[in-house]
Amino acid sequence: MTITLKLETLTAEAFKPFGDVIEASDSVQHFTINDGNTERYHDLANIEPGQDGKAIVSIFRGLPRTLPFTVEMMERHPKASQAFIPTNGEPYLVIVAPAGQAPKADELRLFLAQGTQGVNYATGVWHHPLMALNKIGDFIVIDRKGPGDNCDVIQLEEHAIIEAL
Amino acid sequence: MTITLKLETLTAEAFKPFGDVIEASDSVQHFTINDGNTERYHDLANIEPGQDGKAIVSIFRGLPRTLPFTVEMMERHPKASQAFIPTNGEPYLVIVAPAGQAPKADELRLFLAQGTQGVNYATGVWHHPLMALNKIGDFIVIDRKGPGDNCDVIQLEEHAIIEAL
Repeated sequence: MTITLKLETLTAEAFKPFGDVIEASDSVQHFTINDGNTERYHDLANIEPGQDGKAIVSIFRGLPRTLPFTVEMMERHPKASQAFIPTNGEPYLVIVAPAGQAPKADELRLFLAQGTQGVNYATGVWHHPLMALNKIGDFIVIDRKGPGDNCDVIQLEEHAIIEAL
Repeated sequence: MTITLKLETLTAEAFKPFGDVIEASDSVQHFTINDGNTERYHDLANIEPGQDGKAIVSIFRGLPRTLPFTVEMMERHPKASQAFIPTNGEPYLVIVAPAGQAPKADELRLFLAQGTQGVNYATGVWHHPLMALNKIGDFIVIDRKGPGDNCDVIQLEEHAIIEAL
């Protein structure tokens, strides 16, 4: 049996159980700096490098996914958060499940992120690897460098389908 | 007296005395992940949150600067690094001087960064505030949250001019 995922709009409130939405919106703390030139939207994600870890910056270059898409696996980083911020302005998909035991297909949530929105997966939150859409996408990624294994992967017993948007 | 700054191409090598260039180039460490979907350009900047500091992510929304531009001041963050990564694909200007004593106008370096390049100012490196070009630019910024003052500003005795590109 497979389950069809329902597409949700990505908002800070809806995403709260899974981490942060990184965006320059009026609803976040912001203030003017640089003698009036620049607006700073401040401290938008809880970056957790974890014990003995260091926050690092990488670029992930993802091939666009084709829909419909079958979600067969999920992963989590048990020691640290992981943030993704697109730089090509294109929308992308975010699939998550709460931290804790391995999720079942009917516990997955599917969000459509706009090209102006990044996401930060909180430590241990289950998520699907990068799901760029439309074209090759570069994402700024902020995650952990440090000792120990920091990636758990599970195969879903039942699969989940993402239909065309 | 004023000095006219010479425009330089931003490369990792030229920028090394001042910090890191953040870009997905073949010359940096990269490897394939996510079952072939994604290329990871790995650990591109030395993020230093400093003692008792935490790396945070913000968005700086900068108004475009008009050229010619007169550089009258510089700043530094003595406790931590500060990274800027553009998300609108537009070039921008980077003005730096080595860490240490307050720079004079003839010690400034001017780089043209492409829209695919971020920069990370190493701890204490003198730099000018954001210099977006062409249109309003959103930049992902990774810097420090923590106790103590982390911004020194100096006025230049002689000014430096940036002519039209």
